[in-house]
Amino acid sequence: MLEIRSIRHCRSCGNKVRYEVPPDDNRERAVCSACRTIHYENPLNVVGTLPVWGEQVLLCKRNIEPRHGMWTLPAGFMEQGETTAEGALRETIEEAGAHVEMQGLYTLLNVTRVSQVHMYYRARLLDTDFAPGPETIEARLFREHEIPWEQLAFRTVRATLQFFFEDRQTGQFTLHCADIA
Amino acid sequence: MLEIRSIRHCRSCGNKVRYEVPPDDNRERAVCSACRTIHYENPLNVVGTLPVWGEQVLLCKRNIEPRHGMWTLPAGFMEQGETTAEGALRETIEEAGAHVEMQGLYTLLNVTRVSQVHMYYRARLLDTDFAPGPETIEARLFREHEIPWEQLAFRTVRATLQFFFEDRQTGQFTLHCADIA
Repeated sequence: MLEIRSIRHCRSCGNKVRYEVPPDDNRERAVCSACRTIHYENPLNVVGTLPVWGEQVLLCKRNIEPRHGMWTLPAGFMEQGETTAEGALRETIEEAGAHVEMQGLYTLLNVTRVSQVHMYYRARLLDTDFAPGPETIEARLFREHEIPWEQLAFRTVRATLQFFFEDRQTGQFTLHCADIA
Repeated sequence: MLEIRSIRHCRSCGNKVRYEVPPDDNRERAVCSACRTIHYENPLNVVGTLPVWGEQVLLCKRNIEPRHGMWTLPAGFMEQGETTAEGALRETIEEAGAHVEMQGLYTLLNVTRVSQVHMYYRARLLDTDFAPGPETIEARLFREHEIPWEQLAFRTVRATLQFFFEDRQTGQFTLHCADIA
């Protein structure tokens, strides 16, 4: 299990925290030594889309770390006050400048090593006028045989693409849940 | 959109933060005035189960705030290093002491007002020997006409139960995604 002890000071009063099991709890949390505020750390959601244009899918070449120069589906951390679908759409606009019609939730992938849940929605591209944002070097369409499998940035991108090309043979695109080791 | 400015000090060095838009970003974050660490705030996942025993479903009477004394499905915040299904199973054991066989992801409900994503899995109860933990006053089975609809703790619990009793008429339990205002 992931063990990151990244909190050293209390977000509320600034004093030092200590990792200890609070009363009525069963795991260690960062607890402020002064004001006793408990600081919880929880998994993050990454939300994105699998944009489809006929036989082709849209990938973005990353202009940021990690995995600079590698290819990804448009995705990023979900923000406060938005839904998973709204976040996925926002990332698609921010990273690819792509115009899409959102479709159903397609993959929900647990990445416990980094305590993340990745969710990808299928999306129908409305045109091919992409306008990549600063986080993207290039946004382009790929046919299945053109996918740069060895240059994909994340295993959840690989898994989502694999599920897609499998499902396309039957035309049945149901939700896939999987755990990425 | 939810706007909580709960961070006052840097978790890394303890100095005061200021809310500002960092370079290459497009929304305000808590940025340390001293070491410039950026503190992101993101939605939390709540994971749980809908445990079924024949015609009945399991509900727990809450022994904690919020909604002390009201009824809920077993659920709680997802923890670091676990999958959504593992978290849902853990909460089912902690809150109800119930033995279940996990089934598929059943509801994914966005609660933007509090920046949470609630995910419920269907689960098959293996016996009726419940052993409620300290967070639960009572764990018991309810037939549809017995559900305390006016005493349910959360709207996502209500929605999940409503989907379930609807789907039970056809026997088709597919994923339901919805936004809870």
